[in-house]
Amino acid sequence: MIRHTVVFCLKYLTGSVAEQTFLNAALELVRIPGVEHFECLRQISKKNAFTFGLSMEFADVQAYAGYCEHPEHTKFVQEHWLPGVSEFLEIDYTPME
Amino acid sequence: MIRHTVVFCLKYLTGSVAEQTFLNAALELVRIPGVEHFECLRQISKKNAFTFGLSMEFADVQAYAGYCEHPEHTKFVQEHWLPGVSEFLEIDYTPME
Repeated sequence: MIRHTVVFCLKYLTGSVAEQTFLNAALELVRIPGVEHFECLRQISKKNAFTFGLSMEFADVQAYAGYCEHPEHTKFVQEHWLPGVSEFLEIDYTPME
Repeated sequence: MIRHTVVFCLKYLTGSVAEQTFLNAALELVRIPGVEHFECLRQISKKNAFTFGLSMEFADVQAYAGYCEHPEHTKFVQEHWLPGVSEFLEIDYTPME
């Protein structure tokens, strides 16, 4: 199991239509084959400046690769992620053996 | 629900006794009241330099506060975290309304 997470900030104002449009588009990523336990989250620790997070799990590296190269993912990246995200960090986890 | 996560690197060599001692001590945090869905994880993304992660969930802010101030947690911080961790980032999530 691989848990792919990304914590990020948006360029949009809190509560704006642009913010909601971004989040609605992110929620559609759940439909991509191989995506399990998809979550759209609010980042609430005051120890960092990020405001949102996405978390999803894949059975293995093949499923993860399939997601990365899926047309719906690359379209999301081009149309929403690149124009909308100001800062981000990707963190991927796998259980300890 | 609050998911408290911390991604980190250790000062110890990979596979060393010191590393294993740290990880064994971290695993004991699961016993602290209020801790749910505790996980000790390996960070595998090449897009950051962290190597491990801890993830746990709390029902609410009171349960999270109880963990933070619990003697077993503060003892872990003093005896293992502060001497052993070279870099870390805390990220806390809550579901979107």
